[in-house]
Amino acid sequence: MTLAVAQARHGSNQTWTNPIVGAVLVKHNQILAQGYHHRFGQAHAEIDTLNQLDDVAQAQGATMYVTLEPCSHYGKTPPCARKLVAVGIARVVIGQRDPNPLVAGKGIAILEAAGIAVTVLDQTEGLNPTYNFYYHHHRPFVTLKMAVSADGKLNAATAQRTRLTGELAGHDSQALRACQQAILIGERTLTIDQPALTVRDQKLAVAPRRVVVVNAADQLDLTNRFFQDTTPVWLLSRQPSHRTWPDFVTVTAGQAWTPEQIVAFLADQGIQALLVEGGSHLHAEFVAAGLVDQVVTYVAPTLLGGQALPAVSGAGGKQLPLRLTDTQVLGPDVRLTFRRVS
Amino acid sequence: MTLAVAQARHGSNQTWTNPIVGAVLVKHNQILAQGYHHRFGQAHAEIDTLNQLDDVAQAQGATMYVTLEPCSHYGKTPPCARKLVAVGIARVVIGQRDPNPLVAGKGIAILEAAGIAVTVLDQTEGLNPTYNFYYHHHRPFVTLKMAVSADGKLNAATAQRTRLTGELAGHDSQALRACQQAILIGERTLTIDQPALTVRDQKLAVAPRRVVVVNAADQLDLTNRFFQDTTPVWLLSRQPSHRTWPDFVTVTAGQAWTPEQIVAFLADQGIQALLVEGGSHLHAEFVAAGLVDQVVTYVAPTLLGGQALPAVSGAGGKQLPLRLTDTQVLGPDVRLTFRRVS
Repeated sequence: MTLAVAQARHGSNQTWTNPIVGAVLVKHNQILAQGYHHRFGQAHAEIDTLNQLDDVAQAQGATMYVTLEPCSHYGKTPPCARKLVAVGIARVVIGQRDPNPLVAGKGIAILEAAGIAVTVLDQTEGLNPTYNFYYHHHRPFVTLKMAVSADGKLNAATAQRTRLTGELAGHDSQALRACQQAILIGERTLTIDQPALTVRDQKLAVAPRRVVVVNAADQLDLTNRFFQDTTPVWLLSRQPSHRTWPDFVTVTAGQAWTPEQIVAFLADQGIQALLVEGGSHLHAEFVAAGLVDQVVTYVAPTLLGGQALPAVSGAGGKQLPLRLTDTQVLGPDVRLTFRRVS
Repeated sequence: MTLAVAQARHGSNQTWTNPIVGAVLVKHNQILAQGYHHRFGQAHAEIDTLNQLDDVAQAQGATMYVTLEPCSHYGKTPPCARKLVAVGIARVVIGQRDPNPLVAGKGIAILEAAGIAVTVLDQTEGLNPTYNFYYHHHRPFVTLKMAVSADGKLNAATAQRTRLTGELAGHDSQALRACQQAILIGERTLTIDQPALTVRDQKLAVAPRRVVVVNAADQLDLTNRFFQDTTPVWLLSRQPSHRTWPDFVTVTAGQAWTPEQIVAFLADQGIQALLVEGGSHLHAEFVAAGLVDQVVTYVAPTLLGGQALPAVSGAGGKQLPLRLTDTQVLGPDVRLTFRRVS
């Protein structure tokens, strides 16, 4: 199973809303083949593994170790459980049951009905934390990201962007973006910072959706640097839109877009991992709503002083207890990671 | 000299505005005696070392290694340089020249005039950083201490105290207080937090002065927990005082008490190390004045949210570049230490 887990990790960040999965095929104590789910839309790990065989008849009587329950449904590929039956696999050792209700136990049932011996280890091995979170909590795992000064400030003044952190922290926050399916910002951050919100350090199968909460989508300035990139954008607008938008922009209008509404909307779109990158009011709203599972803070070595914008300001009322899970010095900066204590 | 440095450190935090100093007496490659300045008001390291000898005549022709230039002036004790001459020391190896203008080279001159061979290594060995800072910059070394939430907030609301950090951070901030000569807070911190501002973990020869900037000293509530302890208090009051105060309280009135004025006043009192413990407005004033040499931030694992008080708020206008010098996990909390980049 350790080998299968290592195989699974080869697919990290490339499988979009699919889980990463690895598999190893063993017969007479010999490894016949190993494989993994490479990219969203491509073969699942079980099929990728069978594809490594010179002759699929070799699979007859073999044992497959696979990190996740084989699928039972017709999605972008036919169900793996049926394929394992068809090629005559004798035994399947499964790391974790699939929490996705489309599968959840049905894959195992197909295998067992065909007389295949099934062992479920019930261990995730740390694979697919946000996939598992999503199916258990029915909403995305929410990470708040802040880059702050030593005195907890975002910007030297509220209407200008202050570049705080260095190159290493920049690459690190690119890596943080790469494992998300959506990146959310508020309207002022769009207007003032004009961030691209793209992942530049890795070539991803599917890029995280760029989500912006705005008051009136039709009042946005399309010359903003944000719109120069064609990575899909979801605008959550309070006011309806009558504009004709480029193909990569989708506008959903007519809600107040509270954190609860945003998260429910993204859950409906299948988003399992959401990164909230600011600004301070959006952060405050998510804290007040209690919709924070992780906080990643990059602390930069500067004091911005009393008039600077705090990293979290605006809506209040809720105190969220966290647990420090990691500290990492990144050149001149330091990254602190906290998890929600539930 | 390494042994002399180790001796010096035995006096840490006990010598008040005096430097810590250690000495080793050597003759014919044998250590005759070692000593150090134990406490403010007691014998200097050179005399403490000579006192270890059964017969002071043994010092005749010996070499003394001492971490700081022997003193030349009559203070609480007679000048050490003259004593070294009197007992017939042949050679003196000095770690660092004394930056105190009362000594500064005069101790060396006395030794050399008496025919003693003097070697100056010109190395501080990390001893007495705030003592050296004070004589070079003519003001105390200023440390800003904050205990903040993961979102950089001090208090859940501005009129109540929020206990953020755990036991280890508490002991650590006691250790930080122990190496100060003055601890400064603002009036709201006095009123709301009612801190004792004392050092409870160590028995000190002289406790740091507790300094409070207030608008009108005569309007303070003497039943505040702060006044239940008799460690000396210096009240810096904008309005004059007509009250009769307990012996441990000194009121100095009639200035606006800007950070510059506070620091100048404390420098006149001989204060070499100042800890500013808040609140957020006092922190902001010190940042705005550029009077911050070190920042010690304890980050607690909680989110206080948008309406909570930022650690630094109020006066603005100046951005101070820092350098991260240390990160230390303290139980559930993490301590970040930054130094001014000058």
